[in-house]
Amino acid sequence: MTSPEGFSIRRTRKEDYEGVLSTLKSLTTVGTISRSHFESIVSYWDSIRLLNARKQEGGELGYKYNNFVIVDDHNGQVAATGNIIIEQKLIHECGLVGHIEDISVSEKYQGKKLGKFLIDKLTSVGFANGCYKIILDCDRKNVKFYEKCGYEEAGVEMRIRSNL
Amino acid sequence: MTSPEGFSIRRTRKEDYEGVLSTLKSLTTVGTISRSHFESIVSYWDSIRLLNARKQEGGELGYKYNNFVIVDDHNGQVAATGNIIIEQKLIHECGLVGHIEDISVSEKYQGKKLGKFLIDKLTSVGFANGCYKIILDCDRKNVKFYEKCGYEEAGVEMRIRSNL
Repeated sequence: MTSPEGFSIRRTRKEDYEGVLSTLKSLTTVGTISRSHFESIVSYWDSIRLLNARKQEGGELGYKYNNFVIVDDHNGQVAATGNIIIEQKLIHECGLVGHIEDISVSEKYQGKKLGKFLIDKLTSVGFANGCYKIILDCDRKNVKFYEKCGYEEAGVEMRIRSNL
Repeated sequence: MTSPEGFSIRRTRKEDYEGVLSTLKSLTTVGTISRSHFESIVSYWDSIRLLNARKQEGGELGYKYNNFVIVDDHNGQVAATGNIIIEQKLIHECGLVGHIEDISVSEKYQGKKLGKFLIDKLTSVGFANGCYKIILDCDRKNVKFYEKCGYEEAGVEMRIRSNL
């Protein structure tokens, strides 16, 4: 997996406030989030380690939340963002499962294959952390995209919304 | 939501070692898990609090992992188990989403509506913690069961397995 020319990928940092929130607006409702609230969530994500994190090496390994940004090297803008959250199970010999969530590519950066690059990176981070599988939920219209990323259909997503 | 007569429900504890593992075997491969490994995972689950946990009251609130057991009051056996893991997002005003995982009912306790009771409880725990939605993935054959629990079809589950 090589980075598309002119772009790099790394864990999200506190200074990505504007870039991440504006990118997420391509995906769904974001609402009003203060800089300090954003920073507290990035800190929270960074604070939760996997149970066996000490056995692992490397600056990107050992985290439960793995929110990444693709950055345009030319101007420093956030072009895409996405998360893989690693779940500690009991089944499968206390196995780990990755959940990919909230993939979004900023409108001005669409059509550059950054979505596939992001999924490939998150998948690689999940497996490097020891996940035996990685799952995600998507609309039917996005199935072909995820198949190109190596994923296959596995089941039905069910949902219930809060009445509040 | 009332507990089926003769059964109670509570968070999983370290002493549920045999009961939880034998119940999970109704669901899938569990493998060999030592008592100390089980206990370390229950401790790990209990150690991770939600970002706003201090604002919440009550012994069941404020946890990221919420693994519950239904216990047969007559003999203390674990009859069913399941988990709801609460994800801290940025979207939807830094919203929370619950992920229901690893629902299993021990074979000898099937047909007593414990599955629905468990889902109702986990759903209620998710909403009490502030989740704006709760999701789960299931086989097509289980869609009707989850519809009875108030869930609706929302998308497609995609999966990739590790080569290891």
